[in-house]
Amino acid sequence: MTQLEDVLLTLAAFPQPGWEESETAQVLEPFSQFVSEVIAPAAGECDREGARFTDGRVHLPSSMVAAYRSYVDLGWNQLHLSQAAGGFGAPDAVSLMATQLLAAANASFQMLTGLVRGGADALVHLAPELAPRYLPLLTDGSALVTMALTEPGAGTDLGAIRTRAEKQPDGTWRISGEKIFISGGDQDMSETILHFVLARTHDTPGTRGLSLFLCPARRDDGTANALAVTRIEEKMGLHASPTCQMRFDGAEAYLLGEAGKGLAGMFIMMNHARLDVAAQGVAAASAAHEKALAYARTRMQGRTASGAPASLLDLPDIRRMLLTMDSLALGGRAMVAHTAGLLTSNPRLATFLTPIVKTFCTDMGSRAADLGIQVLGGYGYLAEYDIERIWRDSRVARLYEGANGALAAAFVKRELADPPARAAFVDAIATLARETPFEAGIGTGLAQWADCAQALAAHPRAPQAAEPVAHFTGLLHHAAALAHLAARHPDHPRLAAPARFALRSLSAEIDHAAARLRQMLEEDLPALS
Amino acid sequence: MTQLEDVLLTLAAFPQPGWEESETAQVLEPFSQFVSEVIAPAAGECDREGARFTDGRVHLPSSMVAAYRSYVDLGWNQLHLSQAAGGFGAPDAVSLMATQLLAAANASFQMLTGLVRGGADALVHLAPELAPRYLPLLTDGSALVTMALTEPGAGTDLGAIRTRAEKQPDGTWRISGEKIFISGGDQDMSETILHFVLARTHDTPGTRGLSLFLCPARRDDGTANALAVTRIEEKMGLHASPTCQMRFDGAEAYLLGEAGKGLAGMFIMMNHARLDVAAQGVAAASAAHEKALAYARTRMQGRTASGAPASLLDLPDIRRMLLTMDSLALGGRAMVAHTAGLLTSNPRLATFLTPIVKTFCTDMGSRAADLGIQVLGGYGYLAEYDIERIWRDSRVARLYEGANGALAAAFVKRELADPPARAAFVDAIATLARETPFEAGIGTGLAQWADCAQALAAHPRAPQAAEPVAHFTGLLHHAAALAHLAARHPDHPRLAAPARFALRSLSAEIDHAAARLRQMLEEDLPALS
Repeated sequence: MTQLEDVLLTLAAFPQPGWEESETAQVLEPFSQFVSEVIAPAAGECDREGARFTDGRVHLPSSMVAAYRSYVDLGWNQLHLSQAAGGFGAPDAVSLMATQLLAAANASFQMLTGLVRGGADALVHLAPELAPRYLPLLTDGSALVTMALTEPGAGTDLGAIRTRAEKQPDGTWRISGEKIFISGGDQDMSETILHFVLARTHDTPGTRGLSLFLCPARRDDGTANALAVTRIEEKMGLHASPTCQMRFDGAEAYLLGEAGKGLAGMFIMMNHARLDVAAQGVAAASAAHEKALAYARTRMQGRTASGAPASLLDLPDIRRMLLTMDSLALGGRAMVAHTAGLLTSNPRLATFLTPIVKTFCTDMGSRAADLGIQVLGGYGYLAEYDIERIWRDSRVARLYEGANGALAAAFVKRELADPPARAAFVDAIATLARETPFEAGIGTGLAQWADCAQALAAHPRAPQAAEPVAHFTGLLHHAAALAHLAARHPDHPRLAAPARFALRSLSAEIDHAAARLRQMLEEDLPALS
Repeated sequence: MTQLEDVLLTLAAFPQPGWEESETAQVLEPFSQFVSEVIAPAAGECDREGARFTDGRVHLPSSMVAAYRSYVDLGWNQLHLSQAAGGFGAPDAVSLMATQLLAAANASFQMLTGLVRGGADALVHLAPELAPRYLPLLTDGSALVTMALTEPGAGTDLGAIRTRAEKQPDGTWRISGEKIFISGGDQDMSETILHFVLARTHDTPGTRGLSLFLCPARRDDGTANALAVTRIEEKMGLHASPTCQMRFDGAEAYLLGEAGKGLAGMFIMMNHARLDVAAQGVAAASAAHEKALAYARTRMQGRTASGAPASLLDLPDIRRMLLTMDSLALGGRAMVAHTAGLLTSNPRLATFLTPIVKTFCTDMGSRAADLGIQVLGGYGYLAEYDIERIWRDSRVARLYEGANGALAAAFVKRELADPPARAAFVDAIATLARETPFEAGIGTGLAQWADCAQALAAHPRAPQAAEPVAHFTGLLHHAAALAHLAARHPDHPRLAAPARFALRSLSAEIDHAAARLRQMLEEDLPALS
């Protein structure tokens, strides 16, 4: 199975301290088999049936509920938990590769289960006194996790949050307010849900008045907490991952970390979530490539020059699309693995790269899934061939956990404006590409990038160039990570063709990115009305 | 209403011989009002409810059936019929602009009704003896038209068609075989359907054994012909336009034109259909722009530098996306109007441009609709905001009436290899851009294009570069058509900002297209297996 092989090659190229390569295969081979046999087959039904909201509760397709039961029974949920949280203790990179395999098979399942790692980490770091009570619910699978941040009018702008928390004499809190876009805000596959809620505890305006809370769907005595889903959204995709509107009516909650420092606490979860979303983008690219390649191999059309029956693979334009998809998936996966390794070894660089990896991998996930539809021709438009679902399911990855435009704008403001961080990026990319066929091309690109980034850092029109500079940064990281991956496996036939294809297009892509960026600094975009 | 205004500005910039500008407004203003009041409101229900296949018949949503009744009662169907066919006699450009407005409002409705013009033309040109019997069914709206070409294993490769036609002693024919992907193969909104069927009459292999037939769903005596829908496809979008699998069991049919010349006859319909599909791409871009602009105007988020409440329009990245969408829609519409005018004045150039306009406008329709989703952020993913439907409905335009890759490959082979046609293209584009701010940039681009095109024409690796060269050609046509449009209305505030935005990005886009093209000629793409 190609995706498992690609995952193993990637982890071998980006070894994680204290973790043996042999362990990876021991864990991910059976996990991949479980995913193929149990998770993937439910994806079509999950999409068609979707989550339903009746009598105030959210009901998931029965195949989803059954798949979750197996997942917990086999202990796969513990793959995403640190040893401190009572779990398996796999490094972030391994957990993210498992996430990629899971999301490629059934994006809704991955969404419903994906926040457990971040939630457990927030508990361990912010409220060790609550950990003994709530971590076991995560290790035994009886609870799943949500992040309840967004409100009507407060999405990108979290400073506008109006949900309030009032402290009680016993030290607990009561939360009241409306939240929207809560993935998995209710479901019937885990016994309870731990909501991580951002709420206002101070009258300080903006984000400084916000604190982070743990708000369990069920109180310790088993009774329902004062919160409810009020509706679920009809969406383009991810039909079995319910996107909920919720009301908190004085729901009992526990403060996580310090009051007024909610945003910092949230970022413990969010940084995990953003790399997870990047892995969702890789999953879309990888799954679409796998399906499109399998189709093109067997779909006969016309004859070759020598008169033999031809498959779609004999058409150069089909090969161009498949190689594009493959190099996007391989390089994107390598970006995720590389960044995951930096979370412990170089957290500053990980913070710099996270918005780039999230935006680039999700943009490229959409692009690859779109190409996958095109490879199948008219069949790509049919539900039966299950590639249009990949596009629909993955489209949201560019919108949530920070819309890509908002992340790019924040990257310009917070990361690019920091000269040592820029220098560290250039070093890291050059190091990845060293002694690979990409070295010269990436070197030229990095010099252009450093000029552009410096010009941009002080430029009043920098916000106009946010998307182009984020893309430019992602291009270099993608090329270097792919170069590194291929160079670590010089004799592996799987990697040579897509790596070479990416290399030959690199200079055109770099020049284009640099030209788009410079253009945006030349004059003000007009006002629109 | 912006779209109507844009259509009128476009037709004024590309005047049609024998047709007054005042006539355009007289016709299209009430048509646009009809579309807004009757066609657009049904789009959501059409998408949700979709076409259903029960008891061997296809049933459309009742709102679709009612909308068609009004359309015919008001005589709007005749807008698409020539005077020779008993219709209104609007020029192709006017008919295509009506198609654009219709497709922007409800893509399924436009699909179901869109082949009437091509069918009528085929009748008038190929079988004048049948015209008195069948044209009245089109003018009074009691019949709609399908094109029945594709079969399992014979899509792009029509030479593989196996449906057969046998001549009867009375001179009529009997058709037997299976067809797939027949849009509107059955429905319950018109009394009958005229199927235009490609079938094999000779044992000559490939396309030379094919002939074109008229096969009415009902015989003249009112009885059902021997044909049936056997299933309809579940699709990503266009839910109310049934995509049918059909069986012909000795169905009575009439030969159109000469036996063995079916492909030539089919191209009478197909060339209309391809420009219609280009108009569908423009419709997607235009509708998405309209919705996204309306949303961004009213969606408040954060504050401006001066502390006033800000809308999304205050964010530079949102303006970048909206200007991109707007310039794609305006330029694409101008490409369609320009090419439509050439159908009579310079058919050779129209043939050269048609695959370019189809591929470029449909690619850009997807791109603009995708940007529209991004402008709305998370709301863009919700069915309620009705912009994800635009993406889904328009995605198929890159797959049907010639998948874009197949059209690009044919363009390289048939059009680009013809030196006089290349010279005529360069002349036409330079003429459009003359005395506009785009003149110098397009001049440079045309020189690069001419070099690339000449190199490509004789190059064994030309098929690898089909997509890049088609895109490059489209870029120049798009820029020139937009330049011409804006220059014809120098004082119109609507056009200045998107035209200037397109102009500033032009050289980066041209350089990128040329670089991608040259790259593809450098070495063979690897074989894949």
